[in-house]
Amino acid sequence: MTMRVVLATRNVHKVDEVSRILHAEGIDVELVPLPADAPDVAETESTFAGNALLKARAAAEVTGLPAIADDSGLCVDALHGMPGVLSARWAGRHGDDAANLALVLAQMSEVPDGRRGAQFVCAAAWVVPGSHEHAVEGVLEGSLAREARGSNGFGYDPIFVPQGYALTTAQLRPHEKDAISHRGQALRALARAWASA
Amino acid sequence: MTMRVVLATRNVHKVDEVSRILHAEGIDVELVPLPADAPDVAETESTFAGNALLKARAAAEVTGLPAIADDSGLCVDALHGMPGVLSARWAGRHGDDAANLALVLAQMSEVPDGRRGAQFVCAAAWVVPGSHEHAVEGVLEGSLAREARGSNGFGYDPIFVPQGYALTTAQLRPHEKDAISHRGQALRALARAWASA
Repeated sequence: MTMRVVLATRNVHKVDEVSRILHAEGIDVELVPLPADAPDVAETESTFAGNALLKARAAAEVTGLPAIADDSGLCVDALHGMPGVLSARWAGRHGDDAANLALVLAQMSEVPDGRRGAQFVCAAAWVVPGSHEHAVEGVLEGSLAREARGSNGFGYDPIFVPQGYALTTAQLRPHEKDAISHRGQALRALARAWASA
Repeated sequence: MTMRVVLATRNVHKVDEVSRILHAEGIDVELVPLPADAPDVAETESTFAGNALLKARAAAEVTGLPAIADDSGLCVDALHGMPGVLSARWAGRHGDDAANLALVLAQMSEVPDGRRGAQFVCAAAWVVPGSHEHAVEGVLEGSLAREARGSNGFGYDPIFVPQGYALTTAQLRPHEKDAISHRGQALRALARAWASA
């Protein structure tokens, strides 16, 4: 029987990516969107895993279904690991990808090539109401480009160049990106945890 | 004989503060402004002391005079110590105090009171051409307000509340601020080093 799972996000890009990654793995799951009247969850934790668990718990509580949540972001070495958990609202307004990305490029404009290291980090959380909670993290190492390139993906994809690649994650094809991405790694680890549960 | 020293900054607020602090200490020094045609120095170092030395060296070289430079900024715990050396250009454009301060407040909008710790840090550098270099650091502990208050000072003063105070550093009188400030501490330490040299 197909398991119904609520995906605790209103970000349509994340819904697309999570569905694509889980289906590519052959995970038999029906992703239920977050109900329109579910309350907003303030992401007040200082870690990705902490925020992913907050969101998954809230979605599980409001629906009574098992819930998946993702909290992810860009960690820039020269910014001491920031934007980090503030990635989605780095420029001040939640979800303005273009402004967030432009701000990081401006902040990094005088940082030389050898010091542009960065990581994409994703924590995926899995909460079964009244039963258990689990969070795993995936990391993609890379560096920051000097200008945005590519139109796939979302968020900081146009300025992130994975280690060993010349293209940004916004220039990779979706399945190429999923194979190496922080989100792909975290969700596959979550799926392995289900399979062995 | 009054010593002539070039102050390696084009920030008029810093000229005012440095003059005030040194004169309050009774330091007999004539501060010479940076020549209008002195080349701009890219602040590419990852530490305040590194950038202060870059600026002092360049000013000493172009004038042949001993040089003082200041590099300072706001380090926010919840932002992993940033804006740090990027304080003056946090919102992307160098020296836009209002934009920088508004961005930090927006980034910190969901961070609760117990996690709003911050430090004002100042490195003061002293370079005598062909002779020696010296850099010292001063730190003022405090926390971030939720909105700007006060009109003294500059930079992030309107949102910084020193430990043990209810007012921001922009609400303190200039001499009260100098007595505790990161810049006051660093410059007084530099002056003690001269006195004992």
